[in-house]
Amino acid sequence: MRVPAVVPWEARAAAKRASTLARIPQAWRLDPAQLDEAKGQRDLTGAFIHRFLQSRDIEIISQDSLELTRAIGSAKLTAVEVTTAFCKTAAVAHQINNCLHEVFFEQALERAKQLDAYFAENGKTVGPLHGLPISLKDQFHVKGVDTSMGYVGWIGSNLGIKDPSQAHQVESQIITELLSLGAVLYCKTSLPQTLLLGETKNNIIGQTLNPHNQNLSCGGSSGGEGALQALRGSTLGVGTDIGGSVRIPAAFNGIFSLKPTPERLSYRQVANTNPGQNTYRSTVGFLSTSIGGLELALRSTLSRKPWISDPAVVPIPFREDELSLVRERADANGRAREPYLPLKLGVLWTDKKVGPHPPVLRGLHTVVNALREAGHRVVDWEPPLQATAKRVHVSFLKADGAHDIHSHLNLSGEPLIPDLQEAFQLRPPLSLLETQDLTLQGLEYEAAYSDYWNSTSNDGQIVDAVIMPVAPHAAVIPGKYYHTAYTEVINLLNYSVAVIPVTKANKDIDVVDPSYQPLNGLDKKNSEAYDPEIYDGAPVGVQLVARKFEEEKILGIAQIVTAALKAHR
Amino acid sequence: MRVPAVVPWEARAAAKRASTLARIPQAWRLDPAQLDEAKGQRDLTGAFIHRFLQSRDIEIISQDSLELTRAIGSAKLTAVEVTTAFCKTAAVAHQINNCLHEVFFEQALERAKQLDAYFAENGKTVGPLHGLPISLKDQFHVKGVDTSMGYVGWIGSNLGIKDPSQAHQVESQIITELLSLGAVLYCKTSLPQTLLLGETKNNIIGQTLNPHNQNLSCGGSSGGEGALQALRGSTLGVGTDIGGSVRIPAAFNGIFSLKPTPERLSYRQVANTNPGQNTYRSTVGFLSTSIGGLELALRSTLSRKPWISDPAVVPIPFREDELSLVRERADANGRAREPYLPLKLGVLWTDKKVGPHPPVLRGLHTVVNALREAGHRVVDWEPPLQATAKRVHVSFLKADGAHDIHSHLNLSGEPLIPDLQEAFQLRPPLSLLETQDLTLQGLEYEAAYSDYWNSTSNDGQIVDAVIMPVAPHAAVIPGKYYHTAYTEVINLLNYSVAVIPVTKANKDIDVVDPSYQPLNGLDKKNSEAYDPEIYDGAPVGVQLVARKFEEEKILGIAQIVTAALKAHR
Repeated sequence: MRVPAVVPWEARAAAKRASTLARIPQAWRLDPAQLDEAKGQRDLTGAFIHRFLQSRDIEIISQDSLELTRAIGSAKLTAVEVTTAFCKTAAVAHQINNCLHEVFFEQALERAKQLDAYFAENGKTVGPLHGLPISLKDQFHVKGVDTSMGYVGWIGSNLGIKDPSQAHQVESQIITELLSLGAVLYCKTSLPQTLLLGETKNNIIGQTLNPHNQNLSCGGSSGGEGALQALRGSTLGVGTDIGGSVRIPAAFNGIFSLKPTPERLSYRQVANTNPGQNTYRSTVGFLSTSIGGLELALRSTLSRKPWISDPAVVPIPFREDELSLVRERADANGRAREPYLPLKLGVLWTDKKVGPHPPVLRGLHTVVNALREAGHRVVDWEPPLQATAKRVHVSFLKADGAHDIHSHLNLSGEPLIPDLQEAFQLRPPLSLLETQDLTLQGLEYEAAYSDYWNSTSNDGQIVDAVIMPVAPHAAVIPGKYYHTAYTEVINLLNYSVAVIPVTKANKDIDVVDPSYQPLNGLDKKNSEAYDPEIYDGAPVGVQLVARKFEEEKILGIAQIVTAALKAHR
Repeated sequence: MRVPAVVPWEARAAAKRASTLARIPQAWRLDPAQLDEAKGQRDLTGAFIHRFLQSRDIEIISQDSLELTRAIGSAKLTAVEVTTAFCKTAAVAHQINNCLHEVFFEQALERAKQLDAYFAENGKTVGPLHGLPISLKDQFHVKGVDTSMGYVGWIGSNLGIKDPSQAHQVESQIITELLSLGAVLYCKTSLPQTLLLGETKNNIIGQTLNPHNQNLSCGGSSGGEGALQALRGSTLGVGTDIGGSVRIPAAFNGIFSLKPTPERLSYRQVANTNPGQNTYRSTVGFLSTSIGGLELALRSTLSRKPWISDPAVVPIPFREDELSLVRERADANGRAREPYLPLKLGVLWTDKKVGPHPPVLRGLHTVVNALREAGHRVVDWEPPLQATAKRVHVSFLKADGAHDIHSHLNLSGEPLIPDLQEAFQLRPPLSLLETQDLTLQGLEYEAAYSDYWNSTSNDGQIVDAVIMPVAPHAAVIPGKYYHTAYTEVINLLNYSVAVIPVTKANKDIDVVDPSYQPLNGLDKKNSEAYDPEIYDGAPVGVQLVARKFEEEKILGIAQIVTAALKAHR
């Protein structure tokens, strides 16, 4: 075990912040005037961040993952050019939006050079991710790099290792896979203390705000990923999700994400909160500026047969046929295509506990209208009430009485951040019998939900997927994320989800509805937290939810819905 | 909840025994002289039970599952003829070997009639199991029938139902599947109280002994299945396995079984012990008089896409290609076939805790010799020590301090059977933190085992499967099953296993080795329990173990090994 340090935690955190900044090459550092300019800016994306970049950089970072890999594969760009552009953009993004835990640009550029040399020598790429910069949530172990996971006590090491001499020697299996596929790794992104918060705050970096609207949170827990991608400092990142953690940041930052069923991708040798709680598992997922990026990531990593090295992974290869079976049902504009069945999607307007704010409701309507225009079917979705599932799931997240969390805090003496002080005080763990009873309730809910899903075939066609809010609000005002059930329930169900961006809050359209009757105290609190002025410009995304292990299907559906949305606009 | 009855449990158990016998038609009842004759008989199989059957019955029951379905599908036999022969044989088997909990022959014959009518009308079968009698371990709910699971308190009902009015109305999902495939259900077979015993004893039926050698146990927990099939009262049955429960009875009764990875088949709405313990799950498995029967059962049930109705099932259809890829590697005699790679099998001679008795060692040598003769490769298997895995697994089986078990006992006031009194006294449950720590130890063992497996590719070919003992002894002397690690560890690993019969203990060959040096007290106890005279004639089987979700592969390997064994003889 690591020995608690004598240096005060505040000093260790400050030193870490300084060391991260110090790793940014001088040429990419912003001067105080530029930093001040950023501080006064509400929206840091697009034109704003571009002013700190060269046009050549902008040209590169404006491309999505697939375009980049194709450009490198056809010798239009080199890995070094692409890596340089993304390292530089990430460096700027961090300086203006505080979204990184680790930078290792030198390693990245060295790697890119080797990849270019390989390409020059062999006339082919190492693999489908050749030269693509991929950002990582700070849970994944990369050789030579810290994994603090936001805990001061793990600075200088890798959270979870048992033997201190292993520090900086460990590598998560999925990292090994990404490297073997040709990826370039260059930074690790911020996350909240404990991972169990829909925002991104910890005692090392403070907090990460939303690049689209600095009044708001970037979401969490893969929040730094979302923020970095909103600023185009990455086109593809790896996160994790046990309650919404790749979905919330995608929705809040106007990007895409894929939350697979837990056993689809390898979680082996990845830092985590309370890994002994293995009933409701966190899953590795991807965030990307494009659906193409998500598809590339899933197809590539599955081509490495992760189940051979990680016995927790189910041996299901990427099923091209499952993707094709969906794709053929629509044309390039997302329009339903004869002679195939149109999509039949459910829509969850509200979970009847906390209703969505006006921007989210408009987002749902936009998707539904776009789909209907495109000839698809949309039906209301009235599943078993989410309250049971939410209660069971959150009980598991808290089951150990925060013992694991406090073991990490105790290493440095740092406190819980204020947002978590109520939820994660050290408490007696649940009893095993209570836990077993909750397990049964969870299984029962899963079965009831599945039965409901099957019942939708009563008109001859079963629902393909369900459109749902990600949260009852757009990118949230810090401290006002009161209700996480919209994502958390899906973790209990272990379903496959894609999040797609839909719209942005607009104070002129998304006005307060004075006739709204709150359903309960919590709903009142949430509805009163809606402020059109503050939310203006906040991204809104939706969840597209398919059943367990339907990752290919939901990617295909996300493509159709996105195309239909584009045509609708 | 069910209200504890006022009738003494002994009387309820006796009434149940009587009522089961009373359901056997008069024509199939044995007279006291016949019953006496059976009581004095060591081996009830083959010629002995045949004396109570007609030659037409014998002709039918001597066929295996595939032959029977083909005969019915080609109108050579009717479902009624086949069902009659198996019901009659099962009736005799129960009278001489006490292996059934439930008989519902009338229902079965009615069903067979309907199937014949369908066939006559449509000129085709209902499905691939059309007319095949399938026996069921007494955990599966069939409409109109009890599921006592060996508990006196559940006689007249179905273990686990919450609403008493649901009694005899429930149906396990896999039963629905089997019926839709054309199966005929006719009896439920005996099992031990708690399911957690390698023998078959409970307070309702007493115990089920081994048809091959009445000195010995039929094994457990799917023990009645094994015994019934040894007597050819069934060619295909459904059991469950959380510690060896479909493998032990197969090995002890000279038949075949398949233990899949838990999430491959539906366990929905199946009675079980402590269902809230969902970390190490029991799995539905098949027992059969032939590998063809196992293959038929797996292919058929998976064709029903069990994952659609049961969200716990992983959506992996029957993969014909995985089976073909193995099959093409050998000819009909199991000989390695150019240009394919020969099989490479590991062999676990001993777990270094309790060494196998002479008949089991000879069984392992026989398999190894047969495979080498057939041109395949066999290497020693030295995995991480089984002791850790065994300790973790058994801790989970006992984690609730037997609360679930005692809740069932308390319904009637019946006691634990003597064999279980030490293991399952009511105790305080483990704490959740202990359980989480054990979870991590289990995951670590799984990963280490998988790493070891991968390391066997160092000569360019990875091990395909591993040959292992099922137990350190042949069909065991009642009360002398001291060491269940050989099967239990495989449950911790969630691997796919086929058990095949290899030989029978032979007092003239399998003599005591006077030079044997016991490894420890437990090994001494086990080795001293070997008595060539008592064990003579006891079946010996082996486990063929493949990795998670490799059911098709292990069936293919089991076919090759069985063919090679036949050629070797």
